[in-house]
Amino acid sequence: MRNIRTDLAVEAKELYDEQNKEEMQGIKINEYFESGVKITDVNILDEIGERNMGKPIGKYITLEMPETFMHDKDVMDDVSKVFSKSLSEVVKLDKSMTALVVGLGNWNVTPDALGPKVVSRLMITRHLKELVPDKIDENIRPVCAISPGVLGLTGIETGEIIKSLADKIRPNLIICIDALASRKAERVNKTIQVGNTGISPGSGIGNRRMEISEKSLGIPVIAIGVPTVVHASTLANDAIDIALDELINKSTKGSEFYTMLKNLDREEKQNLINEVLYPQLGNMIVTPKEIDLVIDVVSKIVANGINIALQPALGLEDINKYIN
Amino acid sequence: MRNIRTDLAVEAKELYDEQNKEEMQGIKINEYFESGVKITDVNILDEIGERNMGKPIGKYITLEMPETFMHDKDVMDDVSKVFSKSLSEVVKLDKSMTALVVGLGNWNVTPDALGPKVVSRLMITRHLKELVPDKIDENIRPVCAISPGVLGLTGIETGEIIKSLADKIRPNLIICIDALASRKAERVNKTIQVGNTGISPGSGIGNRRMEISEKSLGIPVIAIGVPTVVHASTLANDAIDIALDELINKSTKGSEFYTMLKNLDREEKQNLINEVLYPQLGNMIVTPKEIDLVIDVVSKIVANGINIALQPALGLEDINKYIN
Amino acid sequence: MRNIRTDLAVEAKELYDEQNKEEMQGIKINEYFESGVKITDVNILDEIGERNMGKPIGKYITLEMPETFMHDKDVMDDVSKVFSKSLSEVVKLDKSMTALVVGLGNWNVTPDALGPKVVSRLMITRHLKELVPDKIDENIRPVCAISPGVLGLTGIETGEIIKSLADKIRPNLIICIDALASRKAERVNKTIQVGNTGISPGSGIGNRRMEISEKSLGIPVIAIGVPTVVHASTLANDAIDIALDELINKSTKGSEFYTMLKNLDREEKQNLINEVLYPQLGNMIVTPKEIDLVIDVVSKIVANGINIALQPALGLEDINKYIN
Amino acid sequence: MRNIRTDLAVEAKELYDEQNKEEMQGIKINEYFESGVKITDVNILDEIGERNMGKPIGKYITLEMPETFMHDKDVMDDVSKVFSKSLSEVVKLDKSMTALVVGLGNWNVTPDALGPKVVSRLMITRHLKELVPDKIDENIRPVCAISPGVLGLTGIETGEIIKSLADKIRPNLIICIDALASRKAERVNKTIQVGNTGISPGSGIGNRRMEISEKSLGIPVIAIGVPTVVHASTLANDAIDIALDELINKSTKGSEFYTMLKNLDREEKQNLINEVLYPQLGNMIVTPKEIDLVIDVVSKIVANGINIALQPALGLEDINKYIN
Repeated sequence: MRNIRTDLAVEAKELYDEQNKEEMQGIKINEYFESGVKITDVNILDEIGERNMGKPIGKYITLEMPETFMHDKDVMDDVSKVFSKSLSEVVKLDKSMTALVVGLGNWNVTPDALGPKVVSRLMITRHLKELVPDKIDENIRPVCAISPGVLGLTGIETGEIIKSLADKIRPNLIICIDALASRKAERVNKTIQVGNTGISPGSGIGNRRMEISEKSLGIPVIAIGVPTVVHASTLANDAIDIALDELINKSTKGSEFYTMLKNLDREEKQNLINEVLYPQLGNMIVTPKEIDLVIDVVSKIVANGINIALQPALGLEDINKYIN
Repeated sequence: MRNIRTDLAVEAKELYDEQNKEEMQGIKINEYFESGVKITDVNILDEIGERNMGKPIGKYITLEMPETFMHDKDVMDDVSKVFSKSLSEVVKLDKSMTALVVGLGNWNVTPDALGPKVVSRLMITRHLKELVPDKIDENIRPVCAISPGVLGLTGIETGEIIKSLADKIRPNLIICIDALASRKAERVNKTIQVGNTGISPGSGIGNRRMEISEKSLGIPVIAIGVPTVVHASTLANDAIDIALDELINKSTKGSEFYTMLKNLDREEKQNLINEVLYPQLGNMIVTPKEIDLVIDVVSKIVANGINIALQPALGLEDINKYIN
Repeated sequence: MRNIRTDLAVEAKELYDEQNKEEMQGIKINEYFESGVKITDVNILDEIGERNMGKPIGKYITLEMPETFMHDKDVMDDVSKVFSKSLSEVVKLDKSMTALVVGLGNWNVTPDALGPKVVSRLMITRHLKELVPDKIDENIRPVCAISPGVLGLTGIETGEIIKSLADKIRPNLIICIDALASRKAERVNKTIQVGNTGISPGSGIGNRRMEISEKSLGIPVIAIGVPTVVHASTLANDAIDIALDELINKSTKGSEFYTMLKNLDREEKQNLINEVLYPQLGNMIVTPKEIDLVIDVVSKIVANGINIALQPALGLEDINKYIN
Repeated sequence: MRNIRTDLAVEAKELYDEQNKEEMQGIKINEYFESGVKITDVNILDEIGERNMGKPIGKYITLEMPETFMHDKDVMDDVSKVFSKSLSEVVKLDKSMTALVVGLGNWNVTPDALGPKVVSRLMITRHLKELVPDKIDENIRPVCAISPGVLGLTGIETGEIIKSLADKIRPNLIICIDALASRKAERVNKTIQVGNTGISPGSGIGNRRMEISEKSLGIPVIAIGVPTVVHASTLANDAIDIALDELINKSTKGSEFYTMLKNLDREEKQNLINEVLYPQLGNMIVTPKEIDLVIDVVSKIVANGINIALQPALGLEDINKYIN
């Protein structure tokens, strides 16, 4: 079995299907559309599903945004609303809950800056509830947030920072936002995943080293991830696969050529290629040229989705006014 | 007694002298020059000094940078070196110490962004000592850092964040950097203060609300402050004082006019003025037009001073190479 | 007569009134409110008005924004709409006109960056009309724009850059946006002026050196100005004036004190003060602490006002979609 | 012949060699090392060379920077010095010359922002020579600079802006800096090319549409280019080529498989692949993850190389002081 790790549940499923003929056991999938957004709701039901998917038991909802979202404010708002519903589905949001939102990633590295950008656009209310409770609507829920930076910037494991803060302020819910790497260019900056099993070590494009989960923190952890890059070596691998498939399609079934191609151990090929390509590609990523702009737009969509979910008493208009 | 609060020990002394004829008791002051930097070393010795200065017992060193520092890299380096010595004088830096450096202030507000800017230019080594101890020089000391943001951005008291982190990672020393307000335009962005008594509530231009000190954290706290603004209302007050002084100087001693002026309760005047001016000036600050550039330069100077002090095994050249 | 130069027509009028008892000749003023915006429409009618106001014959409309504009998107939109009308009143905008919009000022100096920020938020269409005329609505008007930088950044007079470009691409209209200095803190970032007489040398907070006008360029020039700072020395002067006025109010009419104060040559006083204060205040400005945020919001309002005025075929919603 | 366009002379030569057995006519190449920098000096001598290389007659010098340049200030300075020499070799720099430096590219798109970043770090002196000639050293040469933006931002062809400005201020030399796309990941951000034939339409990662050359402007034009990206489709193509080569190497010479592979029309394959991959890869680029930082460092190196070349009377230390 090919052992490419992916942070996206839909990709884990895809990889499984590429390598297995029988249907995957231990999961339940539900696909539907809402306001032009394709929603894939993956439930990992038991240990079999866990093993098959390489992900913990839990719920993972993936949103694929319509092509037009970058150029149409109305579509952006629609996606935010659909996303806020997905968020409400993976966790029971209660009125009195204090939520701590954590923007993971390095703000100096554009495609890794999604988390901090989302945090900068949230409605922050926890201090208002404490300092001027009479001045704000009692339906406003307490929300606080932090972008802890990355190990290279702080010298401190991100997990340590979050754990220490969670121990101190005891939120009822932690929401983490992280930039991910996808296996496919077509998903980059067009997909949002939200899940209720936290974040595993090594996820994200910045190679986080800690687990951030209910198990490690004692508090429910929602993980929101957006793939913002494809690793260049993944792209190279995929290009080769596509080329080989084309060769096979075009060669006569049963011919020596066909047989040779069919018998290629692709894994071995790719390792070989990796050795040739990797020294140059190791640290390289594939992104849209306008990554700065795209990250900006996607972070607004995600932030508003969170704002709507955490502040059901307010409409998107009120939130936009507040956030400005 | 006039009750203008100031974060700078040299200004507290100045205010006392303006209002009192006798010399201040309970403090010891030492002034000298080094590499063109004027150094004022204020020691508050006892409770009398504490009351007179409105600041806790401890050591406060103020550096006044030469006029040319903005345009001459060599002068910048000189100031960094002198500053690193002052830092070593207010705290015993030990080779095995882990230092946690905290950049206070709001990165979205240029004159308040000094702390976070300094932090972004530090040599961060704690993780290297832990992860790849064999690969780095044993003389490198472990340094970690964080810019926690401000209450309005996070919804969490900055003091809470620092306390929780200090409890978790147990550094031997905490160094806080903060942007301050000065009483005088001439000090803005030209003065660096370093002291060993931590930070009191209400300091800084962002009106921090917490005390950050050895008392509250159980760990020695060094506070580095640079005045980056004068409050507009302070400037207005000062302008009026200067005008009244000029009127007094020019009027005939003993005349009704002279007597009237002399008898003015300036405090009352200023309160009156404050009522007239304040509605417009409350939130306004006085800064150099090129504040973005100035903050950039001063943050480099402060960061390098800290780098030199914390890494005595390295020269400034090595540090510059590392920091890039 | 006091000779403080001001870029705002409303301030020139105010200064005249402070120093003269009779009503000003040669101007016509019209004040009214629209959507909460106070509009002052100053028409300088002849050479007498020109001399009295220190500004060329022409039309100057000043908008004072409601207090709430910073925190309410709807108010922002209202101001943009009112502003777009004012723009249409100072120049006849014709459907086939090509407009060149110029963002004056230094993008590295936050309070001077208004012009470049506005330009970055405009609908740019001239190239689309030329390259893909079939693909865009025939009602879209050709708009192009540039932020030429300032003399210190380019080594070229801004006027030279605009003149050379205007000679080359022959627009029918030039719109310049510039950050100004106000005399009063209460106007800072709350006032927008639009006039049809171009820009005089020495205007703006960056001390532009060129005239940009129909006379110098052969093309109608609309000037949009927003005061983003008060010079610190202006604030000091005003504080002193207010204090002296208070003293006069409180002293007994006819007393020596009263007479002395009344007879003070304030000009002389201020010069004196200037000598004492100026060395420190020369380059200092008074701004709101959150200048970065304020400039951001005001530039959006101004940009949308221009977008609406130049593209009457589109609604603000379409423009917002386009601009994103 | 494969018809992949490249902006780098060394790549054009490489492509030729891959497709032709005989040595290229009409060019002269000289390779050497200096201070650890590999220099390739390509001279296109005549029309034969022109045709073979797909580039105009002229001189193209390529610098390959040592691996360590990102982490060592001394290496950065060495590269700047070597680069300044190359610059002096492609154009006769005369003491009285006025140079206009043009930073091409879109400052909002990180990998395309190299040109504007270089311009922001130049010594700008033309205005000083005109305004305060007595105050500056007579050996300082007049330098001015502009970053005109891109068509989508201004609505004006970059070539129009440069032409109009050149016509107006009549510099003796124009130096353009542009971000390029490379064919190979290993060259990205590690190579600087300087040539004396200007810039052709369609160069650069932003697809410039104009020619900027002595022919179009009447003034010598030096073009400096740094590849900052590889197009994702180029990477995909290369990966496939490498895979096919590996297959050929491993298959028995003379076997059907070998023959089939050898006889593949790779061009056709790639077109096919392009159709499959292109919809997703069209606008995607390959860059290092830390592109923001890399662009920063490279722009400093290039800017200082230009500064040294244009101001031979100053040392790098003086320049660093000036630039700060």
